[in-house]
Amino acid sequence: MASYQHILLDRAGATARITMNRPSRRNSLSEDHLRELLDAVRSVAASDATGLVLAAAGPVFSAGHDFGDVAARDLLGVRDLLAVCTSLMQALQAAPQVVIARVQGLATAAGCQLVASCDLAVAASSAGFALPGGHGGWFCHTPSVPVARAIGRKRLMEMALTGDPIDAATALEWGLVNRVVPDSELDSAVDELLARATRGSRASKALGKRTLYAQLDRPEADAYTLALEVMAAASQLDDAREGMAAFLEKRHPTWSS
Amino acid sequence: MASYQHILLDRAGATARITMNRPSRRNSLSEDHLRELLDAVRSVAASDATGLVLAAAGPVFSAGHDFGDVAARDLLGVRDLLAVCTSLMQALQAAPQVVIARVQGLATAAGCQLVASCDLAVAASSAGFALPGGHGGWFCHTPSVPVARAIGRKRLMEMALTGDPIDAATALEWGLVNRVVPDSELDSAVDELLARATRGSRASKALGKRTLYAQLDRPEADAYTLALEVMAAASQLDDAREGMAAFLEKRHPTWSS
Amino acid sequence: MASYQHILLDRAGATARITMNRPSRRNSLSEDHLRELLDAVRSVAASDATGLVLAAAGPVFSAGHDFGDVAARDLLGVRDLLAVCTSLMQALQAAPQVVIARVQGLATAAGCQLVASCDLAVAASSAGFALPGGHGGWFCHTPSVPVARAIGRKRLMEMALTGDPIDAATALEWGLVNRVVPDSELDSAVDELLARATRGSRASKALGKRTLYAQLDRPEADAYTLALEVMAAASQLDDAREGMAAFLEKRHPTWSS
Repeated sequence: MASYQHILLDRAGATARITMNRPSRRNSLSEDHLRELLDAVRSVAASDATGLVLAAAGPVFSAGHDFGDVAARDLLGVRDLLAVCTSLMQALQAAPQVVIARVQGLATAAGCQLVASCDLAVAASSAGFALPGGHGGWFCHTPSVPVARAIGRKRLMEMALTGDPIDAATALEWGLVNRVVPDSELDSAVDELLARATRGSRASKALGKRTLYAQLDRPEADAYTLALEVMAAASQLDDAREGMAAFLEKRHPTWSS
Repeated sequence: MASYQHILLDRAGATARITMNRPSRRNSLSEDHLRELLDAVRSVAASDATGLVLAAAGPVFSAGHDFGDVAARDLLGVRDLLAVCTSLMQALQAAPQVVIARVQGLATAAGCQLVASCDLAVAASSAGFALPGGHGGWFCHTPSVPVARAIGRKRLMEMALTGDPIDAATALEWGLVNRVVPDSELDSAVDELLARATRGSRASKALGKRTLYAQLDRPEADAYTLALEVMAAASQLDDAREGMAAFLEKRHPTWSS
Repeated sequence: MASYQHILLDRAGATARITMNRPSRRNSLSEDHLRELLDAVRSVAASDATGLVLAAAGPVFSAGHDFGDVAARDLLGVRDLLAVCTSLMQALQAAPQVVIARVQGLATAAGCQLVASCDLAVAASSAGFALPGGHGGWFCHTPSVPVARAIGRKRLMEMALTGDPIDAATALEWGLVNRVVPDSELDSAVDELLARATRGSRASKALGKRTLYAQLDRPEADAYTLALEVMAAASQLDDAREGMAAFLEKRHPTWSS
């Protein structure tokens, strides 16, 4: 396993966990930090893990980009930084694992984008979410991309224009997270939801989540064109065959992946 | 009226009703069953009915595809089956009638897709909704297409990845159904909502719902390009003229359709 | 400032306010009224105002198109009218100001479309929202475009097909408005939300809201392609530089715009 400076990567059973570990910098996303996260996600993606927890150490989940790292860059320099950041978000969606955010504190800007880019998210009651570019001079253009796709348009406008945080209960109501639990129950709630989301065939879920992201936000007829072909092909895979046979024979399936 | 083996088709006043009637098979959607449903929807579409209720007999709304019918098929065979299924979903959206699902029990996989594909849905308190491909080996790729377009993205991921059912109250909160009522009030709630949704000009509603489905999930400027032309053309139809004249003359309109 | 017959345009501090002022006609949107609104929005857009309140005089926010103005028109005439209406909706989204609807009463058809087209919306408890084309002969095709993009699909179908109003609390739950307050607190709630949404750099917000509208309803990869380039370019603007410098130097920023 690679040696990282800003993050922790470990594995327990079939679950990999990446922990942002720069609490003194509020887990802000310098290019080094982003590159470590991207490397770790790719490493997990290539492994046989079935689930990936994205967590953070300290009181803050992530404060987003590190202004100390941004302020000195010219246009191409910032573009390169944002390209790494976008690659990370897309890697979370492309990973074959079910990816779940464990949000223990405030998630702002690209930190909020991380939560929106994970397949699932569980938040502690004390967590919060913000697109703080609305406070200042650098608007949260890219963080708004996945946040917009989780919550409604008027709600997106409010978050992006005011920059103010919403609390965990509001995030749940708006669909930005799947669960809100007391802080002390955060780990058990993450484990419980991840266990349910990783049951069954790993290969089936991997194809499933990628197809979901590909068909979303397209006209419905286009989405069907894609989903129909994938679903027909998927029916011929070993695990689909096994699942149907087990159902028909009233026995438990044995997954190949 | 055609003779059907798996479904019932009847008519009361201006309302047609299709009832899935294979309760012993949990109304699972074999190709024969799908083809009967598609034939019946097309038959209703060609009639002068103004509303269509999609209902089910027995304790289950529909368990989705019939694994007994899927398991033996090769790739092209499954593709053909899914093409019939997708044609059914699109026929519900293309029909000139207001289509309402009457959900009295669990609606899973393609059964949940049926509910999402109807214009409106009323559920009994005891109903449930699931994309159970998440449990096993054959992911709910095509059912996720219309479900994704009714509920938020994180909620879709939870349903699709866990495979676990949500209850009727959650379906209402997430926007998958329009009403949840005690089981004993299901028929009256369906009738009440359908009566309100079928008032006015049948031709106007038919053009309206088709245009809605065509403009959704497109960039807003593209949606306006389409909707503006349709709305301008619609203003010249007899019923639009009559509606405006009646309003201006403070009298009740008389619809031509 | 231009002289208007149907509307009021005034300015208080950095906030412009456009008030629909045809209460005797329920603020219905004749072509003259629409053209005045469009002219006023363009005038505000060209000004240095940071916020724009869209309000209405009298008990009704807006009843939508004026049937007296529509009924006599032929196809091209209605098309021209709808083109002006659509230009108004798009001008609200293109304006560099944060645009907020102050909804004191019923907003129907193109009136409801106005609310959906503003960036933010605050409603009095007694307000209501409807797409009443569902009652009659002329379906609300174009009003459904922005309403669909704020609320879920089943909810859109219910509003568009039944034509019946939803109350303010339902509009809040569905995401059509950002706040519902007692009627007596409407102005203070509008002022409070607008003040928070207009803090910071005006240039940054202007670019921000335009980019949001441009990236919505596109496949996520396309949205990132756009948002990444805008965000990189935006990082080089004076206010972004100043915002980051102020943060790093622990001082208050001074915005150039």
